[in-house]
Amino acid sequence: MADTTSTNGGGDPMTGLAHSEAHYFNSYNHHGIHEEMLKDEVRTKSYRDAIYNNRHIFKDKVVLDVGCGTSILSMFAVKAGAKHVIGVDMSTIIVKAKEIVAANGMSDKITLLQGKMEEVTLPFPEVDIIISEWMGYFLLYESMLDTVLWARDRYLRKDGQGLIFPDKATIFMAGIEDGEYKDEKIGFWDNVYGFDYTPLKRTALTEPLVDTVDLKAVVTDPCAVLTLDLYTVTTADLAFSLPFNLPIRRTDYIHALIAWFDIEFSACHKPVRFSTGPHTRYTHWKQTVFYLADVLTVEAGESVSGQLGCRPNSGNRRDLDIKIDYRTETGDVHRKAEGHCEYKMC
Amino acid sequence: MADTTSTNGGGDPMTGLAHSEAHYFNSYNHHGIHEEMLKDEVRTKSYRDAIYNNRHIFKDKVVLDVGCGTSILSMFAVKAGAKHVIGVDMSTIIVKAKEIVAANGMSDKITLLQGKMEEVTLPFPEVDIIISEWMGYFLLYESMLDTVLWARDRYLRKDGQGLIFPDKATIFMAGIEDGEYKDEKIGFWDNVYGFDYTPLKRTALTEPLVDTVDLKAVVTDPCAVLTLDLYTVTTADLAFSLPFNLPIRRTDYIHALIAWFDIEFSACHKPVRFSTGPHTRYTHWKQTVFYLADVLTVEAGESVSGQLGCRPNSGNRRDLDIKIDYRTETGDVHRKAEGHCEYKMC
Repeated sequence: MADTTSTNGGGDPMTGLAHSEAHYFNSYNHHGIHEEMLKDEVRTKSYRDAIYNNRHIFKDKVVLDVGCGTSILSMFAVKAGAKHVIGVDMSTIIVKAKEIVAANGMSDKITLLQGKMEEVTLPFPEVDIIISEWMGYFLLYESMLDTVLWARDRYLRKDGQGLIFPDKATIFMAGIEDGEYKDEKIGFWDNVYGFDYTPLKRTALTEPLVDTVDLKAVVTDPCAVLTLDLYTVTTADLAFSLPFNLPIRRTDYIHALIAWFDIEFSACHKPVRFSTGPHTRYTHWKQTVFYLADVLTVEAGESVSGQLGCRPNSGNRRDLDIKIDYRTETGDVHRKAEGHCEYKMC
Repeated sequence: MADTTSTNGGGDPMTGLAHSEAHYFNSYNHHGIHEEMLKDEVRTKSYRDAIYNNRHIFKDKVVLDVGCGTSILSMFAVKAGAKHVIGVDMSTIIVKAKEIVAANGMSDKITLLQGKMEEVTLPFPEVDIIISEWMGYFLLYESMLDTVLWARDRYLRKDGQGLIFPDKATIFMAGIEDGEYKDEKIGFWDNVYGFDYTPLKRTALTEPLVDTVDLKAVVTDPCAVLTLDLYTVTTADLAFSLPFNLPIRRTDYIHALIAWFDIEFSACHKPVRFSTGPHTRYTHWKQTVFYLADVLTVEAGESVSGQLGCRPNSGNRRDLDIKIDYRTETGDVHRKAEGHCEYKMC
C-alpha cells in the first residue's frame, strides 16, 4: 500500500487528485516555467486586471511587452484595445507564442521578435506603454529589470506620457521563527547517514532559500526596505545597502530573516497591487529565506535592526551578492546579539 | 491572513513546519539535487544496506564509484572494509566531495577524480566492484548507464569475479484513471484566461510527466516490460521495442499509462531491492506518466496490450524518443480502441 500519510508519497489529501499538486512544478517539463507562471493566478490576474480595467489607457496605443514568453500580456493588451503590440523574448518560446497568437487571430496586431531587446529592430520608433513581467526571486535574482530599463530609455515616448505596467516594486523584510525547518535544512548536514557533511552545511548557510513561509512563523512586523519607481530607477540603483528595523511582535526566537516584494500598477484608474508576502496567497515567487548563523532571542517590544546590502556579483552579473548586518535592540545584555552574514544567489 | 486552506499557500498541515515540505525541492538551491538524492531514504538506505550488510564482499576490495556525487557510496564502501575506493564525477561537486571525505578521515582510502569516466586515469588497472547510482527518470532519461557499462568493460576484473552494485533494473508499466489531473495538465491549454493555447497542448501531450501517482489511480496489474542485467547488457540494448499486457483490475477509464522501475542488488548475501512504483514509498524518481490521446473504457477481466519502444534521439543522445502502441482487448466492439503515441523526453 502507498504510504498515504507521508508528506511526499501518494495523492494530495486536499485536492483528491491522483498526483500531488504540490509536486507539480518539480516535474520534468519542457514548458514548465511558462505553465507555472500562467497558473500563478495572483500574478497573471493582476496583470489581466491592470490591463482590462484600463481600456481607456490602452485604446489605440503602441505597446511593448518585454520578455513576452507565451504572449499572454500582449494578448491582454490587444483585447484592451491596443493598436499594436510588440513582444520580445530571447527564448525559443517565441515560436510557440507565434502559434498561440495566430490561433487567437491576433497575428496582425502582435509582432513577436526573438532576440535580445538591445538587438532586435522594433517596427515603431517609440512606444506608448511598456508592459513586462520581469520580476525574479527576491525581486532581483535573474530578473529582466535591466532590460526593461534599457527599453524604457530607448523606446518609451519622451513627452512624459509614456506608461510602464507595473511601475512600482517594493522589497520587504521580516524575521521568522523557523527552528524545526532550519534543523532539517542546515542541521541535516551535521550527520548524513553517519558522516560529517559540514562542507555542504557552510554552502547551505550562504544560500538563500526560496520557499513558502507560514504567516504563523513571522515574529516581527514587516519593514519596507527598498521601493523602485520604474520611471526613474537606474541600473546603478540596483546595487544598494539600506537600513531595516523589524519591531518584535511576540516573545520568540528568530532563526531567519525573510524577504518578499509587492508590485503596483499605479497608472491604473484604480491602482492594482499584489504581494508575494507570507500574509497572502501563494505565488510562484514564494518568499526568500536568509538563515542567520545565530539564533536571536527576542521579546515583544524590542526590535531587530540592521542593513540589507545587495549587488550583482562582479564576476557574473546574473548572480547576486547579498549582505545582512543585524543586531537585537534590547536592554537585556544577555540577549544582545549582532552579526554579519553574506549570501550568494547563483 | 494566509490562505491556509490553499493547496499551495501556507505551512504544511501534516508536518507543522513553517515551510511546506512539499515545495522543498522546487526551491532555488545550488546543491539541491544532491540534497534531494541524499534525503531520498529509499534510494540511499538501499545502497547503504546493500553495502553494509555485505562486508564479506567489500572487505579488502578495490571499488569504483561511477558518478560519485558527494561520495556517500564511496564512504559506505570504506566503512564496509574496502581497501580503496575511486570516485569519478564530471561535476564540480567533486570539490565538495573531497572536503567531505577529508572531514571523515577517509582521504587515504578514497581517490576522487573529476572528469569523464572515459578520460580520467584510475590508480588501479582493474577494480573488484563497481558501485553506481546511475538511474534517471524512467530509468533511462539522462541516466549514466552508458558510462557504467563503459567502466564495466574497461575496468571490472576479467575473471568473472567482478561485481556490480546494483546489477539488475526492471521497467514496469500500468494503466491509470487520471481524468481530473489530465484535465488540469492537458485540458488547461484549451482556455488560458480566455485564450486558445492549444499549440502548447500538443507539446504537453508529447511530454511524459514525472510525478507521483496515487496507488488508488492504478486500474491494471503491473507488467514487467524490460529487465537489464548489468553484467551482460550493452548500449545497443538500450534501444528497444517490447510488448506489454496490462490485465484490467476494475471497470474504469484509463487516461494514461505509467512506468517505473525496480532495482536489485543480487550479489548481496540476501538480495536488496527497492521499487520506484506507485505501490511503495516516495522516491525522487516518482513515476513517469504518458497521457494517451484517447480515453480507454475498460472492464475487469479485459486487458490493454501493446508495445513500448524507446531509443536515444538520433540528433541528441541525451533525449529519449518513446513510442507506445496500445489496444484494448475486449469483446465489446463499441469499446475497442487502439492508438499510437509518440513522446519525447528532452
